[in-house]
Amino acid sequence: MNIRLYNGLICTMSDRTEIIEGEEIWVQGNKISYVGPYKRSNLIFDRELDLKGNLIMPGFKNAHAHSGMTFLRSYADDLPLLDWLKYKVFPMESKLKKEYLYYLNLLAILEYLTSGITSAMDMYFFPEEMVRASIDVGFRSVLVSGINGDNLDSVKNMEDNFLRFNENHELISALIGFHAEYTSSKELIKAIAKTAERHKVSVYMHNSESKREVDDCIKRTKMTPTQYLNSLGIFEHGGGCFHCVYLSQEDFEIFKQKQIAVVTCPSSNCKLASGIAPVEKMINFGIKVALGTDGPASNNALDMFREMYLTTVLQKVVNNNASAMDAVKVLEMSTKIGASVMGLTDCDTLSSGKLADLIVIDLHQPNMQPLNNILKNLVYSGNKQNVKLTMINGKILYENGKFNIGVKPEEIYKEVNKIKSYVFL
Amino acid sequence: MNIRLYNGLICTMSDRTEIIEGEEIWVQGNKISYVGPYKRSNLIFDRELDLKGNLIMPGFKNAHAHSGMTFLRSYADDLPLLDWLKYKVFPMESKLKKEYLYYLNLLAILEYLTSGITSAMDMYFFPEEMVRASIDVGFRSVLVSGINGDNLDSVKNMEDNFLRFNENHELISALIGFHAEYTSSKELIKAIAKTAERHKVSVYMHNSESKREVDDCIKRTKMTPTQYLNSLGIFEHGGGCFHCVYLSQEDFEIFKQKQIAVVTCPSSNCKLASGIAPVEKMINFGIKVALGTDGPASNNALDMFREMYLTTVLQKVVNNNASAMDAVKVLEMSTKIGASVMGLTDCDTLSSGKLADLIVIDLHQPNMQPLNNILKNLVYSGNKQNVKLTMINGKILYENGKFNIGVKPEEIYKEVNKIKSYVFL
Repeated sequence: MNIRLYNGLICTMSDRTEIIEGEEIWVQGNKISYVGPYKRSNLIFDRELDLKGNLIMPGFKNAHAHSGMTFLRSYADDLPLLDWLKYKVFPMESKLKKEYLYYLNLLAILEYLTSGITSAMDMYFFPEEMVRASIDVGFRSVLVSGINGDNLDSVKNMEDNFLRFNENHELISALIGFHAEYTSSKELIKAIAKTAERHKVSVYMHNSESKREVDDCIKRTKMTPTQYLNSLGIFEHGGGCFHCVYLSQEDFEIFKQKQIAVVTCPSSNCKLASGIAPVEKMINFGIKVALGTDGPASNNALDMFREMYLTTVLQKVVNNNASAMDAVKVLEMSTKIGASVMGLTDCDTLSSGKLADLIVIDLHQPNMQPLNNILKNLVYSGNKQNVKLTMINGKILYENGKFNIGVKPEEIYKEVNKIKSYVFL
Repeated sequence: MNIRLYNGLICTMSDRTEIIEGEEIWVQGNKISYVGPYKRSNLIFDRELDLKGNLIMPGFKNAHAHSGMTFLRSYADDLPLLDWLKYKVFPMESKLKKEYLYYLNLLAILEYLTSGITSAMDMYFFPEEMVRASIDVGFRSVLVSGINGDNLDSVKNMEDNFLRFNENHELISALIGFHAEYTSSKELIKAIAKTAERHKVSVYMHNSESKREVDDCIKRTKMTPTQYLNSLGIFEHGGGCFHCVYLSQEDFEIFKQKQIAVVTCPSSNCKLASGIAPVEKMINFGIKVALGTDGPASNNALDMFREMYLTTVLQKVVNNNASAMDAVKVLEMSTKIGASVMGLTDCDTLSSGKLADLIVIDLHQPNMQPLNNILKNLVYSGNKQNVKLTMINGKILYENGKFNIGVKPEEIYKEVNKIKSYVFL
């Protein structure tokens, strides 16, 4: 399909994060072929889309998710963290079967599309089912393994998936990772580090999400999780750490020196009472920070507008400074910085040659009026209700509240409610 | 119009906050005439609305707003509080003309409808224009005066408006109030207390929004704002205080003893870096707490879903307790408790004889699936995107993304952008 998008405002995010008027975008197949002033084209467009003054921008990149946890959404809210995990999450997860994951992932993808999220970095059981769901509907997924324990065979399996998924399909890529230091043996972590060394790639994991996790690690190893992981050689080719609510000054130095990125998940950290990550300090220190929704059991939404808003206002209130964490920076974190952390630099901005992962934001809604500062207002007042169109890999998957993914939402809801009834028996 | 709503889930909030299946609701004129099991009716319905399993519940009550500030939305984000006020808000407000307020208020009302807000307690300049806008489109408004300074004539004017607005129209009511202790002379506050005494009514005002405000008051009067206001007799018939981020233990006692309600505005308090109000402690102490969006200059959205989510997760994270501030309680605060604080007990719940102010929540959206715990999930994952219908006083004003208010949204946007260009000249 060749699609022309015209008569809109454009935020390419290529160079500076600003709004351009009077330009148009052409999509040919799965790529953007032109962004610039109106000009005559010899192309035959299958569709010419009048944006009516609405904003077109890169899609949001959700840099931390457990998509398949949709079945646990609102199953156990308002519980202390350890009760939540021990009595609710773990027992139910143990009942998961591979065949459930397809529809659980599809439900998450539906929600991503409504929020303008064009790709997610996913860590969950049976990743091949997220691969299958993503390919079937056209969603872009980055799979990251979440292995645990002390079985070194799982490292081989992790490596196999890493190689296999990266060869699999243009919508799918994979990164190396494991759940966290507190769920992995030293030997497992060392074996992962060796695998990463062999492929010269970064490793991704949960890190310093709760105070207790950090305290326990110090008691056990006399090191913070970051120092401990670093001592095992896991960060030799950089890395990405999810949450990072509690970092010491020495941890900050390691993050900077080893070029480790942070994925902050403010909703989840608040709802589980984990704390508020020092994001403003990270950024001032030169650490790259992306945004993630975490899983729907602890959020409960998969909504990048919520994460953007929280990222800025929480930094303002904890730093006692209303000018902390500028909204335009947050917009970059949720798009092109996220893409960089996820290894998706081929779909991070709107420019010729990039993959066509983009969204249209409805400015003809009361929350976006009047048009004072559109980019800042996107963070402070923007809502998934403003997502008018979500395009991934050149294909429009969501438009004006309707999905175009080859499967009916009602069928997905029905299947997920069935799965829920099996699991909660 | 007589409207029958059937085939939905119902949360009446009348008695317990729970979901009922297999019942229907009849609306006759501006009132609910029946809530109960399906039964034959002799009524001729103008419309029978199949809710298709969606949820019907009371509309949200926004207990603190400055609706007319829409023109300042995103005009000055990411600025320290005092610069924001002194160099941006006050100079622009001084250029406001009465004729601007009609459309500025209409813009806020549009946004309220999209978020399922069926009434707002409004404090802003030229309240007669909010009255006019509300009546013209069918919105329910509670006007509260926000007088300032030391001119005792303004108290007479306040009383005149109070009497006039309460007689004016079934959609309009009024309460007595003033801006805050730090902008009012002692004589003014005493005169307001006398007026309240004469009418035996509560008084509403901003109180203890920022630490500096509290410190300054203590320096000036040797009392906290609450103690000072109490010493001037302002709370003799109860009262309502907006924000209340910083309260002393003695303040807590006064709130309880004098039956003063709090209206918490978490978004605004975070964005302006004012702090996080001790809402969990207030509720445990027996203080009534409602929710407010504050004005669009400091939020920037007018969205009750945002306020509900923040109210619960902020209490969890600051109290280091994931079970703090139960979501169902928050749902009550944003509806029937808000109604009680706003003097709207005739439209607080869904039962026979109450005014028909209600909303329909679309559960056929991915963020509401699967159906584990709908009421909690409404707070944790609910979004204005789920608002399928907003009815006020028996009239459907918003349905499936379309407004039915007798004026086109595009006309309102055009007028507000014009006003913005006049003011920002």
